[in-house]
Amino acid sequence: MPQLRQNFFTKEWVIIATERAKRPEELATHRPARNVPRFVENCVFCPGNEAKTPPEVMRVPAGDAGDWQVRIVPNKFGALSRDAQPTRVVRRSHRTMDGFGIHDVIIETPDHSHVTALMPDAHVANILRAYKARYDALSFDPRIAHITIFKNHGLDAGASLEHPHSQLIATPVVSNQIRDRLEEALRHYNEYGDCMFCEVMQQELAEAERIVLATEHFVALEPFASFTPFCTHIYPRRHMASFGDISAAEILDLARILSTVLGKIYRGLDNPDFNYTIRSAPAEWIGVKYVHWYVSVIPRLTRVAGFELGSGMFINTVLPEAAAEFLRNVKAEVAAGAAAS
Amino acid sequence: MPQLRQNFFTKEWVIIATERAKRPEELATHRPARNVPRFVENCVFCPGNEAKTPPEVMRVPAGDAGDWQVRIVPNKFGALSRDAQPTRVVRRSHRTMDGFGIHDVIIETPDHSHVTALMPDAHVANILRAYKARYDALSFDPRIAHITIFKNHGLDAGASLEHPHSQLIATPVVSNQIRDRLEEALRHYNEYGDCMFCEVMQQELAEAERIVLATEHFVALEPFASFTPFCTHIYPRRHMASFGDISAAEILDLARILSTVLGKIYRGLDNPDFNYTIRSAPAEWIGVKYVHWYVSVIPRLTRVAGFELGSGMFINTVLPEAAAEFLRNVKAEVAAGAAAS
Repeated sequence: MPQLRQNFFTKEWVIIATERAKRPEELATHRPARNVPRFVENCVFCPGNEAKTPPEVMRVPAGDAGDWQVRIVPNKFGALSRDAQPTRVVRRSHRTMDGFGIHDVIIETPDHSHVTALMPDAHVANILRAYKARYDALSFDPRIAHITIFKNHGLDAGASLEHPHSQLIATPVVSNQIRDRLEEALRHYNEYGDCMFCEVMQQELAEAERIVLATEHFVALEPFASFTPFCTHIYPRRHMASFGDISAAEILDLARILSTVLGKIYRGLDNPDFNYTIRSAPAEWIGVKYVHWYVSVIPRLTRVAGFELGSGMFINTVLPEAAAEFLRNVKAEVAAGAAAS
Repeated sequence: MPQLRQNFFTKEWVIIATERAKRPEELATHRPARNVPRFVENCVFCPGNEAKTPPEVMRVPAGDAGDWQVRIVPNKFGALSRDAQPTRVVRRSHRTMDGFGIHDVIIETPDHSHVTALMPDAHVANILRAYKARYDALSFDPRIAHITIFKNHGLDAGASLEHPHSQLIATPVVSNQIRDRLEEALRHYNEYGDCMFCEVMQQELAEAERIVLATEHFVALEPFASFTPFCTHIYPRRHMASFGDISAAEILDLARILSTVLGKIYRGLDNPDFNYTIRSAPAEWIGVKYVHWYVSVIPRLTRVAGFELGSGMFINTVLPEAAAEFLRNVKAEVAAGAAAS
């Protein structure tokens, strides 16, 4: 029997279609292992080509002089422009604003073949520190309303370049999706006096069925009303509205749990294309009691079709409890040398 | 300079990224012409295999006795079940309902190789009449809150079967996406005393820049804040809240404009994968003054990436004005015999 489940954070309904359910392993990509080279001469993100990107915004140096482990540069083909002014123009139904915004690229490693799932935790922590540094620096710009940090891995996830990278887009507007979530969280706080995300974490930890992994500071789980197979949320245990509030110890622990979750997806589902995104309240909301930031990891195993576009509802063919059990049982440790396979 | 545009109906912002803009023709799929056979023996939708589908809900007969032009059958692997009861269960953050709903398949033609763009208008009109008959029949079921009619064409659009078909899903809930749109339309009516869709149609017809085609009863246009390249809306000129209110003359005209728009997309962009969906108020809202149904055609030329998932905002790389001009200039008439290419 199929089931309708309501996303507690958005109140959106999802169809869990067990009639057409696949076993988790049937969704694995089963694609041949790619032989990605560690260095590609004409890749603009590979070492030696630093001059081909716009001037660097920041870098995490490697041990050796002149080398780097992580670089942040403006996106050469940015979706938004640093030079525009966010002035609104209203002409009847046509409402526009010059495309002001910041669009950065975080080059995650000099190694063209690296994937997050196989990086040492210390390296992932440096990527997260770079996110935070940039998030903090942009947060208090009065022209910026919202910052989205995200990663696209693979063509189906929208990645146009192979070299490991993530992106940051800061916009002068707050989208409806974000605004609706903030409003829903405030409504819950108003009714029950607590953070709805903390409440969900308590319930999920008690029931254990959808937990993938829990560490000192974080909990990784499959959401009860997950909109797509293997979508995995990683919540900080400590109540924090903004990603900018993360502590040094929490960054290390997030690196560990994020790379473990990505490792389980990499091994269990044969390196599928995926996105992750950090969902955070605006930085100036740092002390707000009712919003809670988290990381959402979204493997791209199925296609959005006409029903989803037309109704806004999603059909998920994998039971979240089955996905959690499957991921719990995948060993995340990857044999040394596997990075080059 | 990129531009932010706000969707007037949803108030959602879209980034029109002219810096990375492609000329419309660069988005054409350029895929080799497929040689799709007119009959496939093991296709469950091909003639002779009628017994392999669940019992027929309705059919449009062809001229010859026993033959059919359009069939509607329950989806054998339906996302929802006709036998469930839509009873809610609330257990803290877990809100569920048994998966009641109707999931029909509209088999559009006996010819496995047919595409809507190349069908005679009279045939497309029969498909639309079948939609309406089913829409009307289900609309007053007290268990049903919303009906989505949609088509998936091609793998990237989520079609798992090649034989031309569309689908109808009736759900016992109204999704947030739909509810937000209804609320926004009501808010507009409350402020200005008119239908926001009629207002947009007036403005677009006056400016002409984004019009693709206008017929006696319908207007096809690229929305000013289009979320994706070549997304095309087809609005009835007459104010109507519900698709169920369409007249016989309007059905004929809709068949003509829909197949012309699809023909322009087919020829201009090399038969890309696409979805279309009918966006309509619930049927019992038939006389409501502030909602207006329309058809949304969505070619699937680009990928949703981490930014869209994380922010809910979309980046459109084709200026809607350029898309409209391109489609206006594509001849929609297709040479006889092209259907088999």
